[in-house]
This record gives sequence, structure tokens and C-alpha cells, in this order.
Amino acid sequence: MSDIRPIEWETDHLRILDQTLLPSIEEYRELRTVNDVILAIQSLAVRGAPALGAVGAYGVVIAMNEFEDLQDRLDAIENIRDSRPTAVNLSWAVKRVSANLNEGKERVLEEARLIEKEDRDANLAIAAHGVRWLQENLGLAGYRILTHCNTGTLATTYWGTALGVIRALHDEGKVVEVIADETRPLLQGSRLTAWELKKLGIPHRIQVDSAAASAIVGGMIDFAIIGADRIANNGDTANKIGSLAVALACKRANIPFLVAAPTSTLDMSIQSGSDIEIEERSPREVTRFGATEIAPKGVRVFNPAFDVTPRDLISGIITEVGVFEPKNGQTFLDFIEK
Amino acid sequence: MSDIRPIEWETDHLRILDQTLLPSIEEYRELRTVNDVILAIQSLAVRGAPALGAVGAYGVVIAMNEFEDLQDRLDAIENIRDSRPTAVNLSWAVKRVSANLNEGKERVLEEARLIEKEDRDANLAIAAHGVRWLQENLGLAGYRILTHCNTGTLATTYWGTALGVIRALHDEGKVVEVIADETRPLLQGSRLTAWELKKLGIPHRIQVDSAAASAIVGGMIDFAIIGADRIANNGDTANKIGSLAVALACKRANIPFLVAAPTSTLDMSIQSGSDIEIEERSPREVTRFGATEIAPKGVRVFNPAFDVTPRDLISGIITEVGVFEPKNGQTFLDFIEK
Repeated sequence: MSDIRPIEWETDHLRILDQTLLPSIEEYRELRTVNDVILAIQSLAVRGAPALGAVGAYGVVIAMNEFEDLQDRLDAIENIRDSRPTAVNLSWAVKRVSANLNEGKERVLEEARLIEKEDRDANLAIAAHGVRWLQENLGLAGYRILTHCNTGTLATTYWGTALGVIRALHDEGKVVEVIADETRPLLQGSRLTAWELKKLGIPHRIQVDSAAASAIVGGMIDFAIIGADRIANNGDTANKIGSLAVALACKRANIPFLVAAPTSTLDMSIQSGSDIEIEERSPREVTRFGATEIAPKGVRVFNPAFDVTPRDLISGIITEVGVFEPKNGQTFLDFIEK
Repeated sequence: MSDIRPIEWETDHLRILDQTLLPSIEEYRELRTVNDVILAIQSLAVRGAPALGAVGAYGVVIAMNEFEDLQDRLDAIENIRDSRPTAVNLSWAVKRVSANLNEGKERVLEEARLIEKEDRDANLAIAAHGVRWLQENLGLAGYRILTHCNTGTLATTYWGTALGVIRALHDEGKVVEVIADETRPLLQGSRLTAWELKKLGIPHRIQVDSAAASAIVGGMIDFAIIGADRIANNGDTANKIGSLAVALACKRANIPFLVAAPTSTLDMSIQSGSDIEIEERSPREVTRFGATEIAPKGVRVFNPAFDVTPRDLISGIITEVGVFEPKNGQTFLDFIEK
């Protein structure tokens, strides 16, 4: 698994594994223009908040190569930043590397590489903090885990966030089974998470998203763990649509509901979840499957890509600097100042 | 809509609308043998607890036509009864008409027709009780409603159960919008419910199942209403997988979660939901879409067709004899003896 590099900078372009074709086809795409970068982000060929951060950062280098004129460069960079609204990592990373624009391409590339390296380090630190939290709070010999969407190598630049914690637990021989929600409409769970779990040799099953409550309330799960796209200062967490239903079921079953994310996903400028912009995507994601229409022609669709899980349902937010517990009223600012 | 007759007895066979082909193809199938009946039930060409009752009842007539030998007849009838395990209406109806086996085919057919007629009457009575309960308990001028799976004409023999209540509300001009969950894995919501709502001219949208919690907790819904496949004496309700997650979200949002079902769906021999057998269906329903594989080859799947919503999450069970409120500890037996 460690050989898979879904995002790789190569001299003057970005090479990405096209996630829309998985699991049946493993095909790489070269992103050479700003347009390539934006299309890859919007079509979800590359996705996952930390991965979007890295792609956005390298995207700025591509913009510098493509455009000589300063205003053209700035417009292109803004378009990359705005290509998806909810994951804060994208705008955070674009802004961070752009601060070095005046110092030239080499310096910007260096900053993009640093963001990638920091994400790799964060992945490992998150995994270690997660395992420690679980041992202290549950202390089981083996865990039955539920996860939603994809939070692994494909969503980050290394081990992943929630899936990184699962991988570290597996390395200690402590994973009994992972049940992955398929994650409609785009099936990141059954297409991507199952593919990663298979490569890692971690025992797993998939299920339709709406079976999660039954599995959790029915006593089949010890804890649930997900990633995040944007976390408000109070701990309210925006993540893939369906996360809230998992959290509500965990509360009913009285088992931990955990979020794993690097601190770059925390947006301290936002006090609570009600201020997070939620991307609504095309009705076609729901009404079509490939070329097949699966709903009456012209039907209207509510298709939010994310939902917001309120802080009181979250047992812990596992970051690279430790586990933040918003349930008890702690804010992220309190936590890092502690 | 009243012209659509998804189940119709014709002289010596049953004519059904094949629901696996909707919404793109409206095609009828003739069921002339016990094998035809069982295949139609197991493939979900016909589905919905009350509809399964009617099909099972007419299936006994088909068994009598096909088999002269008593033991052969009894075996065939048993096979129809056992073709799906969770919906109690199927075994209830087969048992009821079979009590008349010795009195000949005409008498059995008469009983099957009576079951169909009673279901039609029950549909209308459920709709009236539902509208009354809503006016007494919410009293809104217009309702925003969430429903799951299909509970309309296609699931019954007439107006439907939950969808019958919605239809009656619409006739009074009180439906602002219905949001229908698509209902994975077989998409009864986006394929069948949206098709019925469109024919009825009721404003609607569809959504992935996992968006339900977000719509409910986000204040977009006034109440949720579903059907049932089997209800225990204490009110615990087995229904299409995903119903439990809807109920948990309604509890969080403090809005009513209603079940609409004829009393033939109540199984007084079962005290609570933990005794209800839950059908697990083929992994292929989740791993394939038509001919397309959407998950890694050989992946294992948890695919329960139903879940159980505990009584404390249910605001009311709307039957043809009134609204039973298990939330307050009332059992169905208490209710009908009242």
C-alpha cells in the first residue's frame, strides 16, 4: 500500500490516480494546466480534504508555470481555491503557498512540498494519538469499527486520517472487522475504502449507508471513526453527507464517535457549524448511474455533499497534536492553548 | 393514478406490474404457476407488505389450480408463505385463505378477494386517521414530509399506507413538499415513490438516504412517515433498512416519526422487535449496479433488508382502526381492547 502514490509532483506537473475509475481501473492522469487541476478537483478524480490541500498547493506552481502576467496568475489561483467550497484545506493551502508568490517558483514549490510532508507527518501522529485514545477509553483486545466515505491514502498524502488510525490498530493486531458505508451518491466507501482495506489485508465488509444505524444500534460496532472537511472552532464538524446519521446512531448505542483530521482542517475563523458553507452537487449524481437513469425524468434532487455533526455528538477529534474533546464544551482554541 | 392496478386477478392468473423495471419501463407480468409467484416475490417484481398479502392469497388459488394432490398443494402453499420472511402479511394472508382449502377453489378465491377489499378499505381508513392525527398534533396549514422506501399504490392494493396519508393531505391542499429517500440498495424511493408522486402531481424531491438526517435536523421537515413489514405487540417496528436512522434524526429534531400500516402487519405473537427475523439479501444488490461492478471483486457485504425501530422513537402507528402510540408504553393489545 505504501507504494501507492495517488498524488505525485513530477518536475513540472502533478500525477494523480484517477479516483473516479477505481476500483475497476487504476489509471493515472497528468495535470499540466490550471484547467486540468480544477477539472480533477471538481470531478472528484482527486478528493479528500488533506489531498485537496496538497493538490491546491501544487496547483499554484502549475499556475505560475502557465501564466506570466501577475493578474492572470492571481485569477487562476483564485479559481483553484474556489473550485470546491467546503473542504477548508484547499483554500488554506492555496493561501499558504501564495504568500510566497513574490519569492519565485522554486520557493512556492518548496512550500507545496512542505505542506505534503507535514500532511504525511500528521497522518502518522493522528494514527498514534487515535490508538492511544482508544486504548485509554475502550481498551479492547480487538475492535469492530464503522467508517464512512474514504479517509485513507487516497484522501491524503500518506496513511490517511480515520483510515490511518485503523491501519495503526491493524498493525497492532487489534482490528476484528471494519464495516465501510458505501457512501452514496459517489460510493467512495465501496469503491475506494474497500479497495484500500483489501490492499492492506484488513478484514472488512461494506454496507449501504442506511444500514449503519442498524449495525451500530444492533451491537455490531465498538466505535465509529470518520474524517472531516471543515471543523468549526467549537468542534462542529462538516464531513461527507451521512456522517450525522452515524453520529446519532453512536449516541443511541452509547459508543464513541470519533473524527480524525489534521489541524489544517480546523477553521478557527468559524465559531460553529451553522456558518459552514455546504456544497450542493449535481442532481445527476443521484438520478443517474453511469448512463442509466434511475429516477423519473426531471425529478428534483436535494444533493448536499456534506452535513454538519454538532459537537455534542463527537467523543473526540483526533489531530496531530492530540485529541480535542468538544463534547465537554472545550473549543479548539482552548485546546491548543492548553 | 387510480387507474394503475399493480395487482389484478384475472380468471385463472395474477397480472402484476413488474416493479423491477420501473420507472423506465411499465410492463405487466402474468403469474400462472406457483413458481411464477415465488420468483415475482423474491425478485421484488412485487413488494410491499400489504401487496405481498394479496399476492400470497391469490397464490394459494394458483397452487390449487396447479396441483391436484393435497400434499403437493400444501408444499406449494408453504413455499409461497416462506418466500420472504420479514413481512408478516404474506404468511398471515396465506394462512387465512388456506383455512378454507377444504371448501374448494371458489371459496379460497372469495377469501383472497376479501383480503384485497379489506386492504383497500384499510388504505382509506389509514389515510383519514393519519390526517386527523396530524391536524390534532401539528395543525399546520402545509406540511414538509420525509418518507422512506415505497408505501403507495405499488406496495398495497389501493392508495397505500404512508403514501396514502400523504395523498389524503395533498387532496386537502396541505402538502408543501415530500422528500423521498432513494432507498438503497434497490432504490424503491427514487424509482417507485418518485414515479407515484409525479403521477399524483405532489411536489417532491429525492435524496440519498444518508441526507435524511441532514434534512430533518436542518429544519427542512415537519414529520416523517413510513410503512412497516412487521410490528411487534409492544410497537417495535421492522421496516425497510434505513427507517431507524430516520427515526433517530426525528428524535433529535423533536418532530413526529409516524408508521402507517394495516393491523394485518401487527404480529401480536411477537412481544418485541428482537424476535423479528430480519432477511439478509444477496451481496450483489450492493456490489453491482445492473451489469457494472461497483466494489472490489469478492468483497463481503452486510445487506439486511430491514431494521427495527424501537417503540420509544415512534410517535404513532396509524392503522385502519386508529392511531396506536407505543411511545407511552401502550401495547397493541391494550390499544385494540380499549
